[in-house]
Amino acid sequence: MIITSKQNPHFKELKDLLTKKVRDEKNRFLIFGEDLFEIAEKRGKIIETFSTDANLYYDTTLSEALMKDLTPTVTSYKVGAILEKIDYVSNNNNNIIILDDVQDPDNVGAIFRSAACFNFDKLLLSNESADTYNDKTIRASRGGIFYLEVRRADLVEEIKSLKEKGYLIVGTEASGIQDLTKIYTSHKYAVIFGNEGKGIKKEILDLCDFSVGIKIDNLESLNVAHSASIIMHELRKNQGE
Amino acid sequence: MIITSKQNPHFKELKDLLTKKVRDEKNRFLIFGEDLFEIAEKRGKIIETFSTDANLYYDTTLSEALMKDLTPTVTSYKVGAILEKIDYVSNNNNNIIILDDVQDPDNVGAIFRSAACFNFDKLLLSNESADTYNDKTIRASRGGIFYLEVRRADLVEEIKSLKEKGYLIVGTEASGIQDLTKIYTSHKYAVIFGNEGKGIKKEILDLCDFSVGIKIDNLESLNVAHSASIIMHELRKNQGE
Repeated sequence: MIITSKQNPHFKELKDLLTKKVRDEKNRFLIFGEDLFEIAEKRGKIIETFSTDANLYYDTTLSEALMKDLTPTVTSYKVGAILEKIDYVSNNNNNIIILDDVQDPDNVGAIFRSAACFNFDKLLLSNESADTYNDKTIRASRGGIFYLEVRRADLVEEIKSLKEKGYLIVGTEASGIQDLTKIYTSHKYAVIFGNEGKGIKKEILDLCDFSVGIKIDNLESLNVAHSASIIMHELRKNQGE
Repeated sequence: MIITSKQNPHFKELKDLLTKKVRDEKNRFLIFGEDLFEIAEKRGKIIETFSTDANLYYDTTLSEALMKDLTPTVTSYKVGAILEKIDYVSNNNNNIIILDDVQDPDNVGAIFRSAACFNFDKLLLSNESADTYNDKTIRASRGGIFYLEVRRADLVEEIKSLKEKGYLIVGTEASGIQDLTKIYTSHKYAVIFGNEGKGIKKEILDLCDFSVGIKIDNLESLNVAHSASIIMHELRKNQGE
């Protein structure tokens, strides 16, 4: 049976997952497109699959119009899935990336992508950062989200607790030092990236052991996701040497 | 006088500049928003300014509806300008960044932004790369475009000519070497970044002296603009030491 009506109760359930509120309540999210689907099959917890192609084996078949209704801003997808959110599991990897109110979903997704590429697997986001599970973030992550343990929390409390556990807490700001040696030779560290316009909040900077920065000319700032990629790459490169 | 009609001939001229064809014919482009306006005043060749605010001193006043009509996808702008395209001037800076069919305007704009931040000022783009002067590219560049000499050309011809002039030609690909020493110790070099999906075309790679790469895990690739930022940062950092 192909679902063709927007009034169909099951389609309404799917569509409700486009809102953060429902995603949070149900602890589920949506992905679209074959590339993400493939990674989700390997690394995610799939609850239900759906497709516009009734001839293939998927749990649910949607008309092309309904699929388009779920993803209005992008080129048409043929497949999608409902997934369970990924748990944050404490493990032995001691490096943490922290985002303090990074608000553009594309930036958060881009940081997820690079974090996965550079083997960072723990991300802590302030509650005011862009939603982790919205379609833009997931697409920009290129599946990176399936390699990460992502958690949202009150950063002040979390950072205080990390300091008690012996973590080196490192801020990033234009005026920071350009030498990362103290970070990558440290046993356990957390590096914080701040809001696109305002940078890291003062109350968070005050908790940092020190800050690092990237020297730039001409413009006011680098994009925060690019800064994160540059610093994550440097940390991994030096750690590997 | 406030222009309020979409049929107004001058408004039509403005709107025509949203298309690449007209931008190319007239050698002009549009910018919007106060941040870009401020940089354009310092570094660009402004032909005409326009605003929704009749009380301020601008050449042309547009109704808010017409301004919105020019920039439908973004939050409302109050000011804008028509600018003359920036000439490519040969100077003594020997480093060139080359984009081989980078097709996403956001990626091209992001590379412009980082290039300006890291003091690269010459960019050469293949004819199939995203248009340099579309609104998305310019916005993503955050004004970086005003610090760059950007030129579009047939890359094979250009690279052959650069080789004759003694340039080291360096490709980027996943399998490339991770050591940039040979680049930043070179007198003159050009580094090439390829298409988002396909990388650098074989005929272009064949012209390269060698390729560099960034080691990654988990995912298939880094975003091309992030790769460019990482490599440009490394080159500048090492050159400065």
